[in-house]
Amino acid sequence: MKNFTLHIPTRLIFGRGAIASIGTEIARDGHKFVLMIAGGGSIKRTGVYEQVVESLRNNDRRWEECWGVQPNPTLSKVREMIAQARRLGVDAVLAVGGGSVIDSAKAVAAGYYVDDVWELFEKDEPVNRALPVYTVLTLSAAGSEMNPYAVITNEAEKKKWAIGGPALYPKASVVDPSVQVHLPWKQTVNGAVDSLSHIMEHYFLGGGETTLAYDESLMRTIVQVTDRLQQAPTDYDARASLAWASTLALNGISGAGLGDGDWTTHALEHGLSGAHPEIAHGEGLAVLFPAWILYCQDANPALFARWAKAVWGAASVQDGVSAYRAKLRSWGAPITLKELGIKREELKELAELAWGVGNHGVVKPLEPEDFLRILELAFE
Amino acid sequence: MKNFTLHIPTRLIFGRGAIASIGTEIARDGHKFVLMIAGGGSIKRTGVYEQVVESLRNNDRRWEECWGVQPNPTLSKVREMIAQARRLGVDAVLAVGGGSVIDSAKAVAAGYYVDDVWELFEKDEPVNRALPVYTVLTLSAAGSEMNPYAVITNEAEKKKWAIGGPALYPKASVVDPSVQVHLPWKQTVNGAVDSLSHIMEHYFLGGGETTLAYDESLMRTIVQVTDRLQQAPTDYDARASLAWASTLALNGISGAGLGDGDWTTHALEHGLSGAHPEIAHGEGLAVLFPAWILYCQDANPALFARWAKAVWGAASVQDGVSAYRAKLRSWGAPITLKELGIKREELKELAELAWGVGNHGVVKPLEPEDFLRILELAFE
Repeated sequence: MKNFTLHIPTRLIFGRGAIASIGTEIARDGHKFVLMIAGGGSIKRTGVYEQVVESLRNNDRRWEECWGVQPNPTLSKVREMIAQARRLGVDAVLAVGGGSVIDSAKAVAAGYYVDDVWELFEKDEPVNRALPVYTVLTLSAAGSEMNPYAVITNEAEKKKWAIGGPALYPKASVVDPSVQVHLPWKQTVNGAVDSLSHIMEHYFLGGGETTLAYDESLMRTIVQVTDRLQQAPTDYDARASLAWASTLALNGISGAGLGDGDWTTHALEHGLSGAHPEIAHGEGLAVLFPAWILYCQDANPALFARWAKAVWGAASVQDGVSAYRAKLRSWGAPITLKELGIKREELKELAELAWGVGNHGVVKPLEPEDFLRILELAFE
Repeated sequence: MKNFTLHIPTRLIFGRGAIASIGTEIARDGHKFVLMIAGGGSIKRTGVYEQVVESLRNNDRRWEECWGVQPNPTLSKVREMIAQARRLGVDAVLAVGGGSVIDSAKAVAAGYYVDDVWELFEKDEPVNRALPVYTVLTLSAAGSEMNPYAVITNEAEKKKWAIGGPALYPKASVVDPSVQVHLPWKQTVNGAVDSLSHIMEHYFLGGGETTLAYDESLMRTIVQVTDRLQQAPTDYDARASLAWASTLALNGISGAGLGDGDWTTHALEHGLSGAHPEIAHGEGLAVLFPAWILYCQDANPALFARWAKAVWGAASVQDGVSAYRAKLRSWGAPITLKELGIKREELKELAELAWGVGNHGVVKPLEPEDFLRILELAFE
């Protein structure tokens, strides 16, 4: 087992009716005026918005609203919101939405204190100063509600890059799984795939029996409860189990003692959806992770075989990958780049964009041509 | 799944050589003069003491030492140390040892601000004010390094009672599993049994698939790595896995979504070792938990059967309990009260002492006579 430091300062309030506590959490820390950041308006249809506003009112908190964050959230929108935050003089940021909204809020919080927020992404240094961030999660996937990371797309440069640092842990996050019953099936699947991928980015590093074993239990659980949700989208226990597993997948627990993650597949996906913002992160990962596994299995045959057996009951890595792809197919997820509308002649550019993200392989150190090979394996 | 709030403010520094960072952690928070609390001197033999002192020196921290905390730590010793802390005017407490030392340090930290520390135990209210606590763990068992609880024995009244509250989370805890290779086998077993019991106190509440599944993985891992340590006490990965599982068993993760625990078996054990301080907590739990399972299984037959199958590969609860007892026997642990030197005529008084601890059953609500029945089931 590798050495690790674990410190998760975020207060997580989880369960039915939890949204009512967001105002209390903000008031507890003494913040008076928040910028509420949201997406396209689904939170009004689901009643989440109303619950948030009521909680802020009940706790005498002022707020202004900033709408319009898109999936694969953009730098230009972040810059616009930073300007708004400065103009208003807010003292905290409240994200109400999924990972895109939360990541945007974190970028706003960090960008508030610097000349240009993109410099933080270029510098690749820990973010130590930011406005306090609060979140109300509406889609369990990115794990951003309990971690210090944010991913933003610089659309002009086709760069989907990340920042991180202690100041970016949300102070408090509220997860009410019952509001996720309104999600389209596709988004539930994308969330499950993203969560599985976060665990796998750590799992294949190997190294600590306790963590490997509970990571396997998390992966099995995600598959099982996603199957249950396909049958019964309103199954609360399944929805809550998926939400909780999704948070654990990227809050420091799934990698404790294994290392900080490999992140090659995420880099490949960020290359892909950086160039094609119409592709959802979960779709990209569904296509790319099986290819990465096939390509990198020789780095640690015993561990990859263990994964195939423990998660899929399969006798070989190839069979495990086939089982994963069959499961993805049964959920309606894509399993080839071709299905996502990618042309073979694009692969080289996508490999270069992914290489620029900066994760070049820990489980198996890779060269630029390896990135291209993995994309080819994922093509059709 | 039940609603829950998770907030673990403790910074955990885990791994080989981690003790060198304890002075840095104390300095980071600006504390200048700590009371170091320790047990009988084993930390001098194992080199832990030297590492701690070197780290304090390297970070220019002052300290005074207070030795002599015993297993089943006593109120009288806690009172003595509170007086010393006040006399010296320390601004933090540093526990170097196992659960008894850490729990004593927490009681000192809380008692520092009140007239009489035992009042906190009598009041059963959250402790919101205490000196900052730091820990260097030398025996993974109690989980006290990353939770807000402390158990102390009032030897005059034969009461082994607990306090808890947000102020009792250690600010930082250091766990270097490599120093635990020096532990006598019996203490390793007691630690494993204590950790298993902490998980079971939550698991049998049922209710959330994700948590149930990873709790099962934690239980299986603890059994597996304890077996490995019986063969090879210096196996670092096994030692580290046991340590990490032990921390997770009682830092909020093992019960997330299930509830705050049942704690009947701990109450029974506290009744037992409150009256018989020569009995180790892990020994008492080894004897009592199987009896509690047999007595309470009808409260949720499906879940108890699931436990038997998932942890022991057994076809019935009875077979699961038999497998657990056989495993305990193979580790050299006691499985009857008689072996621990208890007389049958004492059981009634032990049941009454346990009843006074205040946990009367959540999985299965119990009456005083049920406590006696469980002790009888554990007798021989």
